[in-house]
Amino acid sequence: MQRLGILLSGRGSNFLAIADAISAGRLRAEIAIVISNLAGSPGIAAARDRGLNAQVIPARARSREEHDAEIIAALQSAKVDLVCLAGYLRLLSPSFIRAYSQRILNIHPSLLPAFPGLHAQKQALEYGAKIAGCTVHFVDEKLDHGPIILQRALPVLPGDTEESLAARILEQEHIAYPEAIALVVEGRTRIEGRTVRITP
Amino acid sequence: MQRLGILLSGRGSNFLAIADAISAGRLRAEIAIVISNLAGSPGIAAARDRGLNAQVIPARARSREEHDAEIIAALQSAKVDLVCLAGYLRLLSPSFIRAYSQRILNIHPSLLPAFPGLHAQKQALEYGAKIAGCTVHFVDEKLDHGPIILQRALPVLPGDTEESLAARILEQEHIAYPEAIALVVEGRTRIEGRTVRITP
Repeated sequence: MQRLGILLSGRGSNFLAIADAISAGRLRAEIAIVISNLAGSPGIAAARDRGLNAQVIPARARSREEHDAEIIAALQSAKVDLVCLAGYLRLLSPSFIRAYSQRILNIHPSLLPAFPGLHAQKQALEYGAKIAGCTVHFVDEKLDHGPIILQRALPVLPGDTEESLAARILEQEHIAYPEAIALVVEGRTRIEGRTVRITP
Repeated sequence: MQRLGILLSGRGSNFLAIADAISAGRLRAEIAIVISNLAGSPGIAAARDRGLNAQVIPARARSREEHDAEIIAALQSAKVDLVCLAGYLRLLSPSFIRAYSQRILNIHPSLLPAFPGLHAQKQALEYGAKIAGCTVHFVDEKLDHGPIILQRALPVLPGDTEESLAARILEQEHIAYPEAIALVVEGRTRIEGRTVRITP
C-alpha cells in the first residue's frame, strides 16, 4: 500500500476528499502523515479528529531550505511514497523537489497553462473565460507547470462570482485529486517529457 | 436579417458549418459575401457552388493597410454587419478592427488564453494538456485575445496526434461558431470590459 504525505496550510478540503476516497475504497493508499506550516490550520484539526498522524512544522525565521529539510525528515520518517500538496501555500525548495522527484502532486484551480499562480478563479473571471476547471499535475521547479495527470472542465455561469466559481471548481477538484492519486499509486502513469501517459 | 461577411484562406470548414446552420434555420442571418486572400481557396469554390457572392482579394505586394482597405470596401459594398474570420491566415490591420469595432469574430482551436497563435492543437499536445477546446471571441488589436463569447471543451485522448485532436476540436468548432454568431446577431451579447454577458 502506497503511503501518502499531505501538505496543507488551510482547511484542507482536498485532503478530506482524499481521506474520504480512501475510506470509500476508491483510492487504495494510506495517509502516513499530514503536515501544515501553520499551527491554526483547520486541516490539522480534521486530521487529528480522524486519528491521523498530523504535525505542524512552522517556517519560523528559517530559510526555505531549512524548513523544507525538516519537512523532508518528517516525510521520510513516515515512510512517505507520494507527497500531495493540498492548499500548501509555500513554494517548495529545489532540494525538496529533487528529494521526491516525480513523487509530488499538486492541484490547481484552473485548466493550466491558463491562469497559473494565486487567485486563478478570479483571473478566469477577469479574463472572461467561459470554461474553467482544475488540473492535477506533478510538481517541477516551475510554479504550476509540471506534467499534467488530469484536468476537469466546467462552465463559467452567468452571474458567477469568484466565490461561486471557486466553490464549483472545488467540487471538481474533490473528484479529480483522488482519481489522479489513484492513477499514480496504481502505477498507471508514465511521464514522457511533459506528457503523462495513462495505462488503461 | 443580419448580413455576414466571411473571411477565409483555406477550405473554410467553419464557413460551411455557418452556411449549414443558416440553411437548417439554427442561425437567422445571411452570408452577404465570402472573401479569400488566396485564389486557390477551396472555400471560395464551395461558396460559389452554393451561389454565394465570393471574391478573391489577393494581398499582392501591397501593405496590409492597402489590402485591408480593399477588403473593407468589399464588405461595405455588401452591407456586412458582422465579419466572421474562418481560417483567415492574415492579421487584420488596426484600421480594419476600428472599422468593424466589436463586429469581428474569430474562432481559435484552444481554450484561450491557453495556446494562442499558430498550431494550437500541437501546442496543447506538447504541453501535455488533458482538456482541449475551442474559443469564439470578438477580435481586438491583440492576437487571439478579445472578449470571449463561448468556449467548448473536450478531452485529449490517449494516442491523440495533432491531426486526430485537430479533427475532434474542429467538430466542436462547427457547433460553437454558429451558436456564437447566433448570440451576436440576436443581440444577446453585451461586452463589459473583457466579459461578454449573454442575455438568456
